[in-house]
Order: sequence, then structure tokens, then C-alpha cells
Amino acid sequence: MEKLVSLGELLMRLSCEDALRFTQVNNFKVVYGGSEANVLITATNFGLKTEFLSVLPENDLGKSALNDLRNNNVGLNHIKFQGKRLGLYFLETGAINRAGKIIYDRENSAFSKVEPDWFDWDEIFKDCNWFHWSGITPAISVKAAKVCLHAVKVAKSKGIKISGDLNFRGNLWQYKDANPKETMTKLVEQSDVLLAGSYACNQFFDIKDIQSNSELSKALTKKFPSLEKIAITNREELNASHHKWSADLFTGSGLLSSKEYDIYPIVDRVGAGDSFMGALIYGLQHFEDQKTLDFATAASCLKHSIVGDFNKVSKEEVLELIEGDGSGRIKR
Amino acid sequence: MEKLVSLGELLMRLSCEDALRFTQVNNFKVVYGGSEANVLITATNFGLKTEFLSVLPENDLGKSALNDLRNNNVGLNHIKFQGKRLGLYFLETGAINRAGKIIYDRENSAFSKVEPDWFDWDEIFKDCNWFHWSGITPAISVKAAKVCLHAVKVAKSKGIKISGDLNFRGNLWQYKDANPKETMTKLVEQSDVLLAGSYACNQFFDIKDIQSNSELSKALTKKFPSLEKIAITNREELNASHHKWSADLFTGSGLLSSKEYDIYPIVDRVGAGDSFMGALIYGLQHFEDQKTLDFATAASCLKHSIVGDFNKVSKEEVLELIEGDGSGRIKR
Amino acid sequence: MEKLVSLGELLMRLSCEDALRFTQVNNFKVVYGGSEANVLITATNFGLKTEFLSVLPENDLGKSALNDLRNNNVGLNHIKFQGKRLGLYFLETGAINRAGKIIYDRENSAFSKVEPDWFDWDEIFKDCNWFHWSGITPAISVKAAKVCLHAVKVAKSKGIKISGDLNFRGNLWQYKDANPKETMTKLVEQSDVLLAGSYACNQFFDIKDIQSNSELSKALTKKFPSLEKIAITNREELNASHHKWSADLFTGSGLLSSKEYDIYPIVDRVGAGDSFMGALIYGLQHFEDQKTLDFATAASCLKHSIVGDFNKVSKEEVLELIEGDGSGRIKR
Amino acid sequence: MEKLVSLGELLMRLSCEDALRFTQVNNFKVVYGGSEANVLITATNFGLKTEFLSVLPENDLGKSALNDLRNNNVGLNHIKFQGKRLGLYFLETGAINRAGKIIYDRENSAFSKVEPDWFDWDEIFKDCNWFHWSGITPAISVKAAKVCLHAVKVAKSKGIKISGDLNFRGNLWQYKDANPKETMTKLVEQSDVLLAGSYACNQFFDIKDIQSNSELSKALTKKFPSLEKIAITNREELNASHHKWSADLFTGSGLLSSKEYDIYPIVDRVGAGDSFMGALIYGLQHFEDQKTLDFATAASCLKHSIVGDFNKVSKEEVLELIEGDGSGRIKR
Amino acid sequence: MEKLVSLGELLMRLSCEDALRFTQVNNFKVVYGGSEANVLITATNFGLKTEFLSVLPENDLGKSALNDLRNNNVGLNHIKFQGKRLGLYFLETGAINRAGKIIYDRENSAFSKVEPDWFDWDEIFKDCNWFHWSGITPAISVKAAKVCLHAVKVAKSKGIKISGDLNFRGNLWQYKDANPKETMTKLVEQSDVLLAGSYACNQFFDIKDIQSNSELSKALTKKFPSLEKIAITNREELNASHHKWSADLFTGSGLLSSKEYDIYPIVDRVGAGDSFMGALIYGLQHFEDQKTLDFATAASCLKHSIVGDFNKVSKEEVLELIEGDGSGRIKR
Amino acid sequence: MEKLVSLGELLMRLSCEDALRFTQVNNFKVVYGGSEANVLITATNFGLKTEFLSVLPENDLGKSALNDLRNNNVGLNHIKFQGKRLGLYFLETGAINRAGKIIYDRENSAFSKVEPDWFDWDEIFKDCNWFHWSGITPAISVKAAKVCLHAVKVAKSKGIKISGDLNFRGNLWQYKDANPKETMTKLVEQSDVLLAGSYACNQFFDIKDIQSNSELSKALTKKFPSLEKIAITNREELNASHHKWSADLFTGSGLLSSKEYDIYPIVDRVGAGDSFMGALIYGLQHFEDQKTLDFATAASCLKHSIVGDFNKVSKEEVLELIEGDGSGRIKR
Repeated sequence: MEKLVSLGELLMRLSCEDALRFTQVNNFKVVYGGSEANVLITATNFGLKTEFLSVLPENDLGKSALNDLRNNNVGLNHIKFQGKRLGLYFLETGAINRAGKIIYDRENSAFSKVEPDWFDWDEIFKDCNWFHWSGITPAISVKAAKVCLHAVKVAKSKGIKISGDLNFRGNLWQYKDANPKETMTKLVEQSDVLLAGSYACNQFFDIKDIQSNSELSKALTKKFPSLEKIAITNREELNASHHKWSADLFTGSGLLSSKEYDIYPIVDRVGAGDSFMGALIYGLQHFEDQKTLDFATAASCLKHSIVGDFNKVSKEEVLELIEGDGSGRIKR
Repeated sequence: MEKLVSLGELLMRLSCEDALRFTQVNNFKVVYGGSEANVLITATNFGLKTEFLSVLPENDLGKSALNDLRNNNVGLNHIKFQGKRLGLYFLETGAINRAGKIIYDRENSAFSKVEPDWFDWDEIFKDCNWFHWSGITPAISVKAAKVCLHAVKVAKSKGIKISGDLNFRGNLWQYKDANPKETMTKLVEQSDVLLAGSYACNQFFDIKDIQSNSELSKALTKKFPSLEKIAITNREELNASHHKWSADLFTGSGLLSSKEYDIYPIVDRVGAGDSFMGALIYGLQHFEDQKTLDFATAASCLKHSIVGDFNKVSKEEVLELIEGDGSGRIKR
Repeated sequence: MEKLVSLGELLMRLSCEDALRFTQVNNFKVVYGGSEANVLITATNFGLKTEFLSVLPENDLGKSALNDLRNNNVGLNHIKFQGKRLGLYFLETGAINRAGKIIYDRENSAFSKVEPDWFDWDEIFKDCNWFHWSGITPAISVKAAKVCLHAVKVAKSKGIKISGDLNFRGNLWQYKDANPKETMTKLVEQSDVLLAGSYACNQFFDIKDIQSNSELSKALTKKFPSLEKIAITNREELNASHHKWSADLFTGSGLLSSKEYDIYPIVDRVGAGDSFMGALIYGLQHFEDQKTLDFATAASCLKHSIVGDFNKVSKEEVLELIEGDGSGRIKR
Repeated sequence: MEKLVSLGELLMRLSCEDALRFTQVNNFKVVYGGSEANVLITATNFGLKTEFLSVLPENDLGKSALNDLRNNNVGLNHIKFQGKRLGLYFLETGAINRAGKIIYDRENSAFSKVEPDWFDWDEIFKDCNWFHWSGITPAISVKAAKVCLHAVKVAKSKGIKISGDLNFRGNLWQYKDANPKETMTKLVEQSDVLLAGSYACNQFFDIKDIQSNSELSKALTKKFPSLEKIAITNREELNASHHKWSADLFTGSGLLSSKEYDIYPIVDRVGAGDSFMGALIYGLQHFEDQKTLDFATAASCLKHSIVGDFNKVSKEEVLELIEGDGSGRIKR
Repeated sequence: MEKLVSLGELLMRLSCEDALRFTQVNNFKVVYGGSEANVLITATNFGLKTEFLSVLPENDLGKSALNDLRNNNVGLNHIKFQGKRLGLYFLETGAINRAGKIIYDRENSAFSKVEPDWFDWDEIFKDCNWFHWSGITPAISVKAAKVCLHAVKVAKSKGIKISGDLNFRGNLWQYKDANPKETMTKLVEQSDVLLAGSYACNQFFDIKDIQSNSELSKALTKKFPSLEKIAITNREELNASHHKWSADLFTGSGLLSSKEYDIYPIVDRVGAGDSFMGALIYGLQHFEDQKTLDFATAASCLKHSIVGDFNKVSKEEVLELIEGDGSGRIKR
Repeated sequence: MEKLVSLGELLMRLSCEDALRFTQVNNFKVVYGGSEANVLITATNFGLKTEFLSVLPENDLGKSALNDLRNNNVGLNHIKFQGKRLGLYFLETGAINRAGKIIYDRENSAFSKVEPDWFDWDEIFKDCNWFHWSGITPAISVKAAKVCLHAVKVAKSKGIKISGDLNFRGNLWQYKDANPKETMTKLVEQSDVLLAGSYACNQFFDIKDIQSNSELSKALTKKFPSLEKIAITNREELNASHHKWSADLFTGSGLLSSKEYDIYPIVDRVGAGDSFMGALIYGLQHFEDQKTLDFATAASCLKHSIVGDFNKVSKEEVLELIEGDGSGRIKR
């Protein structure tokens, strides 16, 4: 039985066409995103059964968001329709040396009012073997944090494997009585697998003066002994259209490193980390560690070629890239 | 000196392309709207000097909204940039017997936090001879209601002519301590010109059992003796693409009626009432009453042929339509 | 238990933008269609549980077609992926007095090779209370005819209600040994509900010299005593953009007639008959006869306002139209 | 031998998308037009061999214009590439009661510098049995007028049938020493067939106080005894989207009248007169008079459903409309 | 006399917009392609007179395909209209490390039923000095192979120069009794000029263990002594957007090599080989060998910057690139 | 007081979509441009008050051009509406090794008829501290040259700082009695700041055999002692999508050099020099020399990422790039 469950907010993304700036557009392209949904779709494409827990507003925008997830074949038996607004974000894609820009408009969303008893946890976790959370959910509202902690606790009590992605976002965690350090500590303490980064670790856990991914992994396992695997992605940004991308995986017995990919010209970089996470979760259940790391790195490399937040690539396409065919040759 | 001032919220409109439904779109077309801005742009196109009082968020969406108004040549010397979100509305255009749909997402907008002392009223009303308000502004928030009442009071004290548009919206007036009856009564009591309708008069002023526009006008002038002119538009909806449109003007000495226009196939009906209002304000300062009514009716008839909320027609075009050229013949 | 099952081919529709002709386009808009899928989606939108039986090619076009159906929430647990090509049709929309044009390119499609044992009929018909077929399926290939007859026979044997739509298409039934008269006779003999037309009845059953829908109904019930309900739609084409639309329902005790709708300007007329059928199936299970007829007529009237083959309207929207609100007024 | 030759300017048309106004567009749609080219393409589609005489600038815009004509299968063996600019016109399509607008930008075009000796007249008129001119050509420049007169004179000398379309355009004839009355008189004196209108006849020939098409025809044949056939189209403009359209043909023995078409919603009305002319020329060579008139009226009725200046309809489509199928029914 | 004739299938290409995947598109962009048509258009643009032999279906898609070729000025006097379907191919463009994908849907096309006596070979080869075939044509159907062999035989008998492009496609040659080795051997035996590659030579002629282009050329000339010139293109694929491109030409007296071009970011790589071939045929008739090779390499380098299968570049543009101006500087 | 005034022509730019060629497009994208307007908009975005002097035609194209400038917040109190045509230019963007192409169509524009007394110079130069001219204006017509010289003379007499950009364009200066050497000499003699290049200096001032920017600066200051600052930009074109860009500034005390930027993949290179100039004018009034040069170089580097001729970047964005963040990282 392999069912991956996650909880999170689904956002409508409104993005500028081509290289146009916000002040130049007469149209926004519409896609949907959200870290946890991105993870689930990635994993669904590789063959996992998935279930998404979320709250959508009772209007046609909520319905459209749901339809889009359904199109992607994610399990949607526990979506709650309540509230008035869908969280939004506006995206202006960068180009050359001009940075991309995101304007969030997600406050007071339907999801931010989420309550633990809106979900039937026993039903949800039946046949589930993996629960994934991201640091974005507890950063949305006190209620979202409460439900996220509740979900992790219930999953833990049922012996379900738990992964998390720190995903620090400075512009979130703005709600009254937000306590990122305490909240995140509780979440990570119960987790088995973590996607981390040095900046987030500094912000959340006061882990400072880190010189390498190896050091970071050690500091994390010291603080959180439950962590079996720690993954860290490395992005070098030459300009907005050209990045280098690789990742490391700490497995307890040491730090494994992936190949570095030279990625240009970038199509859409949003969701690369989530693609990595979704592929990591798949890989840890199907491959040994080095192949898992290679698989997750290749999957997220491919995400840069896909329009939208969701990573629409198959397992076969990722495996071909790992096996060395990065030529982009036409398949007839 | 002819300067028309108004206060209101500017909204970004995100509309579905062609006849597509919300559940079918991958793009939203972006235009800007808002009743008071619509009135000002209409009047600006006819040659009035105008000034728009509003609050826009300190981000690129607020800036884009401002640029669009500037493109339309409205006076913008008193726009306040403060706050985080631009009010939005989503539009699905109707077709044949299928109704159009609007989803508002304007709560907690930058404008809703407006304060009276954000504006330099003496500077604003210098050389101003007309102030216009609409019933949408006091319906947004307790603060917006307060500033609207303040503006009317100051304008009145300076002997400036005041017009209002009742614009009843059931989905607004949702804020704590909202008192539509009292607020609207205070606004109309200080006004000289009003755009009214029987449903709104029932909601706001308990004027009931009205059989005709003549009766409605009499009931209103009885209740609000300051009203010199009362205008009422008449829309008959055969289907979503085909309407009949006319208007009446009560002038104290009686009720004048316009020609009825047969309007099909409708391009965009949003903002027709505002176009009428803007043309009425212009007309009352330049034409005698019947011509004013004819001008306002023709201007708003033409609005149905214009994409977006703003009425991009010139005085010459309206006058040609009044003078009988509704043939739509190509001008070479 | 209400589960509606149908069997049929899913087609990719490639249509010209706006009013452009085939010889003018540089783009084709892509939607999916097919009479039986259209029926199921209509019924799904009204709340029925549905299951679609079909065959799709093992490539990305087949996958995209499946995703689109999934987006529409149709049950898809029995889709067979086998074969090489997806059936296509090209559409040039008519305008004014210029007729629309369809070019079919569906020969040798994946579906045309369908075999009875590709489906688990017992599983499919578990909890099913209604099976629907259309005259298009047996017209595709000898194999499709065989599977269609098989499905009807199995459903009949399980006491499932059976409906059919004659859907005569002269450009189909081209395969070797095609025997439309015999095949259609067998199908209708086992059916309870039929959507018929005089031209099709002439072609399939030699029912000639029919002067009225009443006569046609009588002739059909005489020939096919199992038929409990016979529906007939009436379309008067003033030009390509303006039709009149109504329907009749023969119930055994007499002929009921719907209101006639005046439909202009038409957005997309394809799939109107299928919308009628889907709504009829829903109505016969939830309403009395006159309301069922009114519901089906209104649902199919609304289809003319929807882009694509699928009728994306809700039960509430159809009921509002029946109850007299055909004004197309904006819902805020 | 049936070869139709005409001389004229090819223009690039830059038109606003949908119902947008000039002040709203960020794109112009590009098609090509010009009265004489329109006539030739219409006739080519019906099966005539045609040859277009024109001058195009030596740049990629001239080349693109040529390619577009070539796509339409017009004979192009005598196009002269010389000069710097392609004539342009900008089109804002009208809607409802709002008039369409055309801005011409064709002064100093490559064509306006045309010289008689740029064409090999003997080669051109070999196997030619019909020459057509329009009143636009002599209105462009003194050189264009000279070449037009030359062409008519040479054609006449070779016994070729000559037709003309008065096509009065007040914004042309602006060149130094323009003499519309004398020029047009010379052209019509040598013509056999004329498309005329009362306003143009007043402007060009001082034919005044005309009450009917019959009177107009008589006045013209009196003044120009060479005229064998005179056609007059009748357009009643209800609004910019809804016209009535019919035509009359004076044949010497009397005035024939066509059916009147009710045309809505109009797709593109530009080029309707030219479509009539092209179909008239075809008809006069293949049908008797009443059928010719019916054919030309139906062909030009259909033009209103075609995007662009060129009438992309076949002889079969026109004949179907004459024979009564104006239902716009989909052809499968 | 320079007339280049070729025989082949014209395909409609339906491609995804931008970097979208098949599962993401709502539109397909339409262009036309086919190896032999690509060769002819390239050569036409450089100034050769060309004639294309093909079969198109008797519908509007066939007509549109023809119009597009006509727009490109290819000779089309021998096109046969017969049959029902136009061959199609669907293209998803690759990006970064994600491979492009092509789905062919060309079985049972109008062209696949071609017969030798559908063409008037004597008329076709009058004034013709060069016939070109590609390995795609005999791979389509037994009839296409037969006609291709017939054409080569007739051309040979008339002393016409013959060139071929091996163009191995594994997904073709699927028809009953296909014999690629024998068929291709017969074709090459009668040819003077060949575009070859090591993989194709292995597949068709069992030429194995080739280490260099020089070796390959020698092996080919040994097996096919009639070959005067053998060209081989070299493509190094760094990723889907960045290739290196060069070519070699074996002339009997040795192997000439071109400059290597660094090509990024690629616009459209389809048709590059055909562009090379078309330029090679032109060059061999106008330049000495090294310049011919340089010309063909530069022409095909430029193809990567052109949208669609056809190479829309002029001789002047190619010569400028050879002469060193690859700066892409704007020409004013 | 900081007001920057400039005089010049505003052009409508009609450009091909994506990488399409002129012969492939069915649409032109519309933006506005012109060297002097580009300079003013750049400076306006950084915070300068600006005033644009120009002549626009009395039609909707002139009005649209004005609206676009107004959107960009440039001062427009002295625009003259007179004449018939707006200058146009058509742009085909280059790609890879294929050069971009511009077709100018600006002869006989409204601006070319400009007269000195159409402007109220005293009012214009009130509170102005900087006047900028470019070599394009005197190259348009004898009248434009006259007005440009007049403006410089008046500005000089009022002690206003004067800058110029040589902007040599070989395809201009075509009018009768054009005397580029004399005209440009007079303009530069009165200027304080100059943007120059060696090719233009050779053409205008016979400054030849220049080996370095240092030599060029010395030659210029020798000839024009009034010049305080001379700027020279350096563009290395690897291909149409990849350039290197830097600049030098001669300050009297020596030559300063900027960083070199590696720019790929280029979005739109038009207007880069003008962006440099606008930023230079801003910088010379706010920064010391090296920072001014860095600011201008970074501002113009960013222009390559902006669609259209106008540089829509803020001071903050330029400063971030100078300070080393060229990563193009998304700003959330």
C-alpha cells in the first residue's frame, strides 16, 4: 500500500505573459500551485496514489482549482468547500539580469480558516504510508498551524512515515501569536525525512555559521535525532534564465551528491523544490539512496522546462535523464 | 471653472475571454473599473477636468491601476499609496440565456482602510464645482463610509454641486455596524442630483409600492427636498446579448423621457449606469434638460459597445447618435 | 443507487478560431467531444454518478483526452488504452448564412478496434441503473457495433434501464457488412427511452410520410413496444447564428411540448442534442414528465451558450431558466 | 478564353481585434485588401482565370502582400516591384450603434507612382476577355489616373469587355490637378458594365434628384449609351452589426431585383461591394441576367460572414444560398 | 534550364504553443511540412524553379495545404486531389533537458494511395534538370515506394541529375511487404548526390563500424559508384535549446568540412536537414564545392531560427552568414 | 528644480510576434518608441520631471500614442496635434544568427512638418535645467532640423544644460538640402554632454582612424571644447540573442569604464542606447561620475529584458544590479 497524503493551500497563480512586466500586461495566464499540491502531483505522475487535504471557497474559482487538480489525478475525496476567497499570487517572470517578482494576495483565504474537525483523519490515513507537510502551511494562520500539527501527530501515532520541507517564507508567519520556531521544531521532531536549507535553519532553529551541507546535516540530526534523511538543493543563479542545479542527500552514513545540471534557458522555475520533494518521496520507497537523489535532482531539473507550478513529467522521462540523455533530442 | 471630483475604489477586473466560463479559462483579461472612476473617465472624455480620490496598494498592481487611469487623463494628484491589496473582481460574461457572473474579492482592500486625513480637502476642492459619490463607497467599510460622508460635508460647505448614484449592492454593506439607511439618507440629503432606482429606494429609504418613475421621483423629492434632478435608467433584458435601454429625468417641472435603444449584440454592459451618470453631470452643465437626458442615454447606450468598464467615447460620437445616426456606418 | 454508464468514442475536436474558415487559420482550438461523453458530462454536472467506457490510444493525445474527461468528473475506471490514433474532427463554425462545416478524420481510431472482452461488464454494471447508447457507436465499425449490442444485452439482462439516441450520420456506417437497419432495430427493441427524429426513423426503420411528432411517436411505439418515452427535438435554423429550439416528449399517455427558445447569437451549437439527452436521463429519475421535458429543453438551450461540445451548466442554472429567468442578467 | 484583368492598389489592412477601439489595442490583425484585388479573388474562387496589375514596394511588406495574393491563386505575372511604401489602412470595427472607423495612410505609396510603360499591355491582354477598373484607382494620383485611362483605352481597342465600379471616396481625389468628373466620364464612356450608386453619380456626373434605382439607371444609360448593364446595391444599416442587403440590375430591357437578405451579426462588411462586382462579372459570362443578379447578391451577402477584405466562398456555396439554404446548417 | 522536381507527402503539423506539453495545450499551431516540400521551398527561395508532386485529399484541409505551398511559390501544376485524409503530425517542442516529441498520424493518408499513372511524367520532366527523392516516401506505403522508384527510373532515363536523402525513420516502413534494404538500394544506385548518415547506412545497407565521415563516404562510394557527392551533417545536442551544427561533403577528391555553428536558443529545429539538402542542390548548380558546403551549412543553421518546417531565408541572408556576419545585428 | 525637456518624433512600432518573420505574420504587436521619448521615460522612471515636445496627427493613432506616453507619466503639456500621419516602423526581431530587420515608414509624418512657432519656448523652458536632443530629429526634415537648432539655441541662451546623442542613421538625412555635417556641428558646439560613437563621428565630423574610446574622446573635446562629458557604449554581438555590453565615460580628467554585462537571451534590444542616455542624464545630476556610468550601463543592460522601446525599470532595480545582484532571483 502506497498512499501519500499532504495538507496545504491551493493558490491560483496569475502570471504575466512572455517577458512582460506587471505594468505592461492586459492578460494574466492562470495556473494553480501550492507547495504541497506540487509535491503530490509530482508523485502522482510517478505512480503513487495520493490524497490532498485542502479547503477551497464555495465559488467557481474554488471549483476550477479543484477541476485542475482532478485533471492531474490527485486524490480529492476530502476537499472541504467553505469560505469566500481563493488564495492568489501574481507572478512577473524575470529575464536576463532582471529579477522575477511575486505579489502574494492570500490573506484571509478559505484555507486560512481551516479547522481540524473538517477532516475525517481515520478515513484519510487508512492505507496511507506517508504524510508530507511543508513550512508554508503553519505560516498561513494560527488555524492552519494547528491543523498541520494535528495531522502530523495523528500520522505519527499511526506509524506513518513523515516528511517535511522547511520552505521558509519571510512574508508569511505574519499572524498574531505566530511562533515559527516552536511550531517548526514540533513538526521536525516528528519527521523522518526533511528538505532543508541553511537560511531556513538559521531562521527557524538558530543553526548558524554553517559552512557546508555536511555541517548542516550534522547540526540538524543532532537537534532532531528522528531524521533519517536530510536533503538539500543547491541553486546557483547566473541570471534569471540560467541556473546551475544540484542536490545532496544525508543518509546517516554520509552525504551523497548528485550531478550538477546546467539549466538554460529556463522556462519556469517555480515549483522546482517541490518537484524534488515529490520525487524524493517516490525514490525513497523505490530506489536505493544514490539513485533516489539522482532521481529527485533530475526530476526537479526537468521542472525548469515545464510551464506552471506542477511538474508534468513521467518516471520514464526522469530515468532517461539520469541515464545520461540530456540531449533534448526529439522523440518520434 | 469646471472640475469634477469623486472618491471611490479602483478595482482590477479579471474577465474570461470570449464566452468562456470560469471553469474553462486559462487566461483572464485585465481591465480596471469602479463606479466613480467610470463616471470620471466618461466626463473626462467629454472635456471636463476631473480629479479622482482613491487609495491604492504600494505594489505593482496599484501602480498599474494608476497608470491605466493616467492613460485616461483623469486627474490623479491626490491618490494615496498605502496598504497591501487591490480590490479585485472576476467576470464571466453571459451569453444568450446564460447569465453573466461576478465574483467579488475586494474585502480588506487598501481602499477599505481609507482615513479622512489622507486627503488635503481644501486643495482638492479648490476650483472644483461638482462632487460625485456613489452608494458603493459607503458600502465598503466603516472607514470608507466615514470618508464619503466627510467629503460630501466639506463639498457642501464650499457650495459645490453634489450628485450621487444609489448603486445598491446587496453583497456589500457587510461590515460591522453598517447602517445603510442612515448613511445613505445623510448622503442624499446633501445632494442636488441623484441617479436612483425603485429597488434601491426600497432598500435604502423604505419607499415602496412604486408603480412608475414619476411616482418614484415624487416620493424622492418629498423625502429629499434638496434634490433638483432625479434620473432613472430603464433596462429590459431580452437575453444576455440583447437589451432595451432608455431613461427618464425628473426636473422639478416634470418627467422627461429619452428614446429607447435596442441594443444587440452586447459587447460589454458593465459600467453603463456610470456612463449615464458621467454624461448627465456633463450635460447638466452644458445642455438644457431634454438634451442632457438624450446625451446621457446615448452615451450609456454606446457603452454597451465598448470593451471594459470605462466608456471610451467622445462627445462628438454621442451627439451623432442623438442626431439620429445609429447606423453604425463606417467612418472613413 | 444512480449510476449512468455509456459506451462511445471520444474525439479530439480541432476548431477554427472566431469566424475564420479552414483556409484562413493558423491555429486550431482543441476541445474533446463525442455524443456519449457529452451525455455523461451533462448528467454528471446535474449530480449523477457516471462511468464512461471507451478506448484511447496509448500516446499523449489519448492521455490528454482522458485528463479532460477527468477534469469533468466522469467515472473513468474502465478506460482501455490500446491502439494508435485518437479520432479527430475538424470544425469550421458557420456565420450568418454561411454554413458550418465538419471534416471527420476518425477512421481506424483506437476505439474502432474495440472488443467486448476489453471490459469487465459485471464490475461495470454493479450499482448501475441506466445504460445509454447512441447510434454513432454501431456506425463506427463492425467491432464497435458488436460491443454496443453486447453492452445493451448485458444491461438488459441485469434489469438496467436503457436509453438510446438514434443520431443518424450518413458519413458513418461505411464499414464492410454494415447493416444499420438490423443493428439499430436490435438496439431500440431493448430500449426504454429513445431520442428520435423523423429523418433517422426513415433511414433506419423505413418509417415514412410522417407529418408530426405525434405521428412519429405512434409509429415508433407500434414498432418498438418496449419504448416508454420518446423525445424529439425541434430546431428551426433562421441562420447559422439564430435558431429556435423546442422539444416534445411522448409518454405513452400523450405528447407533451416544451416552450420554444429563441437562441441568438449562438456561441456553439455542437452537442445540444446530447445535452438534451443527458438532462432527460437525469430528469426522468428526478422529475415528473413535463418538468423533465422542460428541464431537458432548457439544458440544451443553454448548451448553445457554451464553448465546446460539453455542456458546462449546473442544475441550478437550468432550473432558473425554466422558472423564467432567461434575462441573462449578471449574477453578482 | 476567360481571363479577367484588373489594375489597382493592394493595401495592408491593420485592424483592431474583437470590438476594441484604436485607443485600446496592443495588436493589429493584418490582412490585405483593395477593391480591384477583392474583385479578382472573388472571381478566381468561382473559377475565372485572373491577372492583377499592381505596384508593390521593394521590401518584405510588399513581398508579404504578394504572397497573400498568390495564396489566393490570382495571376501575378505582371506585378512591378518598385518604390518604398505599401499603402496602409487602419480599421476599427463598429459595434451596435457605434460606427466603424477607417484611417487611411496610403499617400505616396509605391502604387501612386505607377507609369504606363511598367506593364507589357500586349502580353497582359493576350487571351483576356474582360477588364475591370474601379473609381479608386484614378483617385489615388495623377499617375494612377493616367495608367487607368491607358489600360481602358488599350482594352477597348482590343475589343475586351470593360466593367467599372464608381466607388466614390471623398478622401481621395486630393492630388494636384485632380479632375474626377472628366476622368470618370472618360472611363465610363468606354465601359459596358457599371456598378453605380446615386451619391457617386451626383458627385461625378451631376445626376441629381434621383428617386429610384430605375431612374438612376435611365439617367446613366442616357449619358453613357455604351452601358449594357448597370448594377446598384442597396444596404440598409439597422446598426453596425445588422444590415439588410439587396441589389438591382438594369439590363436595357428593365430593372431586375434580387431577394433582400437580413444579415446579422455581421462578421466583416468590408469588401461586400467588391464581392458583388466579382460575382457579377462571373455571372454575366455564365448565367442569364436574373440568376446573375441573384448570384452576385448572394455572394456579397456571404462576404459579411468572412473575416478580411477577400471573399473566400466557392461557387457551390453561393448557389446553395440562392437555392434557398440560408439556414447555416452544419455540413458534415 | 533549372527546374527541380520532387515527390512526397505534405503533412499538416499541429504543434504546442511555447514550451507547453501535449497535456497542457488548448490550441495547436498549424503549419505544413514534409521533407521533400521543405527541400523545394528552400530551393525556391534561392531562385530555383521547382515542381512538387503530391496527393492531397479532396477537402478543405487539402486545399489549405495547397494554398500554403502556393504562398511559398512552389510549382503546383501536378498536384492530384484524391482521397480522404491529410497526413498529420503533432509536435511538442522540447526545452532544456526535456526532449521534444512527435506523434505521427499519417497512416492511410491520401498520399499513401498514390499511383504512377496519376502523374504525367513526360510533362513533369520537361525542362527539368534535377529530381530529388527522400527515404521517407518509399517508407510510407507499397504504392508510394512504387511511385518513387518509377519517378527515379524515368528521371534517370531522361538524363536528369538525381539526389536523395536517406532519412531513415524507424516508425515508418511498417507496411506489408516493406523491403527497405532493397528499395533504398535501388534508389541510391540511380542517384548522383546523397545526404547520408551512419545510422541510416547501417540500417539500410549494413554498413557498420564506421569511425568517421570519411570512412562512411568511402564505404558508400564503393557500394554505389554512381554517387558523385555525399554530404553528411553533424549535430551535437547540448540540450534541446542548444546545438552545434556542421557538415562534410565528399566530392570524390576528398572530404571538405564546413565551419561549426553554435546554435542557441533554438527556435525550431524541424526541417534543418531538408534546408541543407535544398541549399546543397542549389549550390551544386551555382558554386564550387567548398562554397556549396558552406552555403548549405549556413542555410540550415539559419533554419533553426525560423518557425515552422519551411526555411524562409533568402540567398542574400545565407551569403551574409557565410561571409562572417553571424552577429544578428538589426538591419535598418 | 529638475526638469528635463526633449524634442522628437514619436513612432508607432509594429512588430512581429515571437520569432516570426515579416512573411509569416498575421498580427503586429503595437508599442510606441522614438529615441527622445525613450530617454524621457527612462528619466521619468528614475524620478525626473520631464516634458516632451512633439507633433502628433489629428487622428486616433495620434491620440493612442499620446495616451501611451501619458501612461508613462511624461509631461505632455506642449504636444501639438496637427497633420495626417504618425511615423511608423516595422520590426522583425532577429534570432540566433538571423539578423533583425527594421522597415521605416516615417516620411511625411506629422512631426516632419514641425515649425518653431508651434511651441511656447519660454513656457517650456521655465524651471527646466536640462535639454536633450538626438541626431535623429535633424535627420527627419529641413523643418525638424530647424526646430531642433532653435530649441538648442534658446536653451543655451537660458543657461540650460544641453546633452545630445549623435544617433547616426544612414537611411535618414534624405531630405533636400540636408547638411548633416554642418547641422550636427552646430548642435554639438552648444552641448555639454554627448553620447558618441566612432562610426557616427566619422560620418558627421570626419574624425577618422580612431583606435580607442580614449582617442575618440580626445578628438571630440578638441573639436568641441564645450563638451564636459562624453559617453560611449560598447556592444559585442555574439549572435542576435547574446550580446556583451559595457560603456566608457570621458570626464575631462580621464576615461572611466563600466563593468561588462553578458546579456542572453535578449528580450528586446531596441532603445538600449536611449536608456543609457536617460540614466546618464539622471546620474550626472545625482551621482559622482563612476557611479553615474555604472548606473547608466546597468539601466541599459536591464533594457534588454524589457519588451518594447521604453525602459520600464525603477531606480531601485538599477541600483540592485550595480550592487551586484544580477542573479535574477525572484523577489517575493
